This record gives sequence, structure tokens and C-alpha cells, in this order.
Amino acid sequence: MGRTSCIVHPLNFKSVSVEKIAIIKIGGNIIDNEVHLASFLSAYATIQGKKILIHGGGKLATKMTADLNIPQQMVDGRRITDAATLKIVTMVYAGYINKNIVAALQSKKVNALGICGADANIIKAHKRINAGTDYGFVGDIDLVDIEKIVQLLDAGLSLVVAPITHDGAGQLLNTNADTMAQSIATALSHVYEVSLVYSFEKKGVLSDIHNNESVIPVIHPQNYASLKASGQVNEGMIPKLDNAFEALQKGVSRVIIGDALDIDQLIVGKTGTTIQKN
Amino acid sequence: MGRTSCIVHPLNFKSVSVEKIAIIKIGGNIIDNEVHLASFLSAYATIQGKKILIHGGGKLATKMTADLNIPQQMVDGRRITDAATLKIVTMVYAGYINKNIVAALQSKKVNALGICGADANIIKAHKRINAGTDYGFVGDIDLVDIEKIVQLLDAGLSLVVAPITHDGAGQLLNTNADTMAQSIATALSHVYEVSLVYSFEKKGVLSDIHNNESVIPVIHPQNYASLKASGQVNEGMIPKLDNAFEALQKGVSRVIIGDALDIDQLIVGKTGTTIQKN
Repeated sequence: MGRTSCIVHPLNFKSVSVEKIAIIKIGGNIIDNEVHLASFLSAYATIQGKKILIHGGGKLATKMTADLNIPQQMVDGRRITDAATLKIVTMVYAGYINKNIVAALQSKKVNALGICGADANIIKAHKRINAGTDYGFVGDIDLVDIEKIVQLLDAGLSLVVAPITHDGAGQLLNTNADTMAQSIATALSHVYEVSLVYSFEKKGVLSDIHNNESVIPVIHPQNYASLKASGQVNEGMIPKLDNAFEALQKGVSRVIIGDALDIDQLIVGKTGTTIQKN
Repeated sequence: MGRTSCIVHPLNFKSVSVEKIAIIKIGGNIIDNEVHLASFLSAYATIQGKKILIHGGGKLATKMTADLNIPQQMVDGRRITDAATLKIVTMVYAGYINKNIVAALQSKKVNALGICGADANIIKAHKRINAGTDYGFVGDIDLVDIEKIVQLLDAGLSLVVAPITHDGAGQLLNTNADTMAQSIATALSHVYEVSLVYSFEKKGVLSDIHNNESVIPVIHPQNYASLKASGQVNEGMIPKLDNAFEALQKGVSRVIIGDALDIDQLIVGKTGTTIQKN
């Protein structure tokens, strides 16, 4: 019950005692590479304290739909998650990838619990309908059950989250892993001091996309405007950075973008790009 | 800590306060039939108190291995779980089937948590090596973490368990769902009064396999011997019954075999076959 009142008065709670948590998203390119995934998980296992890992899907689901001759439907240049594709992504994300990560973490003495948003009703979403376009079984997040997540974390479990949610009426939904990480991070910022890490195959936000050493160490609203204006920040990075600033506005303490293989260094701010609120 | 001492002195604990739990296994034939699965889950949702559902695999994994041209290896008439097959069963059992059951139960207000044995390190197993024959990635169970299961149940969660375990060294293993149900039931009998239900597409143990109404209401060691001797009990049922008697010997209070669609009636002993210790 004490925890519920903390959620109602997050600032009060924070001023009394603030536990830290790391919410870490790994991208598909890391998942697709067995060697990289193994070194990421070894580094991840060394991170102390509470932590949640959100993984993307990688290329395996796309390969399986091709192998099974499931045609990929596109609307306005975006792939549609039809029923057959949802079946494959549920298998691959929540089954194969999730359980292999869990087993690997267990071997490194991390007591991992693999879940999707339907498990313990942790993330509820609704089917996306955008200006009359039906994107199929794609979910936009409505609700994160903070109390249940805290309960599982307090049981000593480290959550590994697959990017699948549900609508509460029995329908699973394919959900963007970056958005899931941001939603979990902002929800948990009512209870913890949250570091949100987007980790992938690059060293951070680069000022020259062809030079992996050109990491911009800090981005804040002031230099972000000029980095965008000068075109120094790559277009593909802009939605990620907008997401990062939104997370900071909503209560996340730190957002870090960087190389998944350096995750133990990233989390202590020794490498990568740190996004700051001010 | 109180709970740990209960595990050490199960009888002491039982005499003080015994909470009931239902451990229910559903067979593959129910899972393969969407309509049957839905009615099973509706009936399952009405069962009060703590409960755990263990599901088998059904035919989808076999169909997928065929669709993907993964050859099925046989040794001594038994199918081998090679690496490619393990990948498919992990996807289908721990991904597709498990998460769809969880989402369906959530829609019926059961706070389901879908797991496999690797999750929260709940079931550890070792790769089966039998008299020099390698059955591939098949797991025989070594350990069930009673304390962790109790913790999850006490958090108000209803576990849905896929028949995949791990060896603690990062390897997932394909594990028989009947055996998993029995292992979980006997382990939890140290803490709870356990009813173990094997539910499938028949009304119980039949004295005439062609007559679904010929249910033997009670089997105990005395009539079991004569039922076997007379050939009245079908050969395919003998391993299930031997398993049932073993579970009773190890502390399970009741074992019931019957129709998954009657699960709410089975659990209160109104239908099906009850296996008794004496």
C-alpha cells in the first residue's frame, strides 16, 4: 500500500529514498549476431542493481515469413502486421529470442524472467488505427502496470521484455521495442531514478555517420536545435532523440545512446551519447 | 524464511494451515482445436484459488518443421529434438501457444504469467543421455524452485507453463509436459494441498476405449492391478497412471484424469477418474 501512495506522490517518494534502475533496449542488429549478443549479455550481467532488458526482433521473423511464403503487405510504405505475421513475430520475439536470452542470463547468474506485455497484464495497448489506415495487429501502449513490475523486481527478478503487448480482450499486438522501453522507463520514473539506454551497433549519436568515433558526448535542447539545423544529426536518429527528450520531460533521469557491447561502460556514463533535459 | 522451514518440515506446515492449489495439464489435442481451447480456458477461469496450467505442444510444431523442411530424426522409434527442432518448439510452445493462452486468460480476468522452466530459474533439467543414446535437446528435470513459484503465486499471478526447461548453462531443453506437471505438483506438495489434473479429450480412464461413457470413477492400487491384468486399462494409459501413483506417493493429495472441457467439474471431483493412494 505504501507503494501505491508513492505513485500518487512520486516527488515525495523520490525525496525520501530513490532506488536506481536501468532500462536497457537492445536493437535487432545485436540480436541477429550470436557473438555480439553473447558479449552484450556478459556485460549486461555485470550491471549491478535492478534492471530491465527490452529486446527488438531482428531479422529472424522476416526470414521465417519468407521461408513460410507469408506475403508481406505494405501500406504507405509501412509493413502491415497481418494475422500470419503476428503469429510469426509472437513465436520469434516472445518465444525463441526471449527464452534464449533468459537461459543465457540464467547461466550468468542473472535471475531473468522473460515476459511480453500480456504477462501479468504488464502492458496494455490498443490496435493502432491512424486516419483510417489499418496497420493490422500493431499496438499503441495505453497502460504500464507499475505496481506489478515493482513486485517482480522486488522478488529479485530481472525482466526481459519481448515487444508484444495485448489489448485486454485476448488479442496480442506487435509493438515497437523503442516505444516499449520509453513507456516502461517513464512509468517507472514515478518510483525509481531511471536510466534509459538505447543500445545498438554504433558508439552513440554520431556527427559523421561514416565515422564511428565521431560521438557527440552530450545533447541538450540547445545544441540539439543547431545539430538538427546543420544536418549533423542523421535523419534516422531524430525520432530516437525526440523520444529521448520526451522521456526526460516525463520524468526519466538520464537517456544514453550507445554501443550495446559497451553496455557496462554506457550505464556509468563513460561512453556513448548522454541526452540531457537542460 | 518461514517458508523455507516449511519446506524442511512439510508435515508440520501442513498441519498448521494448508492452502489448496490446482495443477492442471492440458493435452495437445485441446490446444490444436481453437474452439475447444477457448471453452477450456473459460471453464479454467472460473476455478477459484491458486492454480497453475501446464500446456503441451500440439501439432503446430510438427507442422512448422514440415513446412520449413526440417527433417525429423528418429532413434529407436523416438523423435530426436535436434537444434533446428528445438528452435521450432521453443517458438511454438513458449511463444505462440503460451502467449495466446496468457492473453485469452487476461481477457477472462485471470492474471496469467506465461513462463518456461528457464524463467525465474523455476525448473532446471539436464540433457537426457540414456544408455549411450543421444535424444538431442531433451531435458530430464532435476530441480523445481518451490520458493520462487510460491512468491509468484502470492503476487496474485496464475502461472501458465510451457514444456521447455534449461540446464543452467544457457541451453534450453524440450521437456515432456506430463512430467513437468508431475514435478511441479510433487514439489509444491511440500507447501500446498495439491490436486493434479491430467486433462485431455476423453472423459477419464475408460474401461472400453471405444466408449467415452465407460469412465472408471476411482482407481486405487488394488483395482489397478486387476484392471491391468485383465487388459481393461489401455496400454497408452499405463504410463500416465504410473505417473499418477508416483505423484501420490510423493505427496500430491489427488490426481484426476478427465475431459479438459469439464475442467471446472473435474476439479471438484464430479466427473473423470480419481486416482487414490490407498
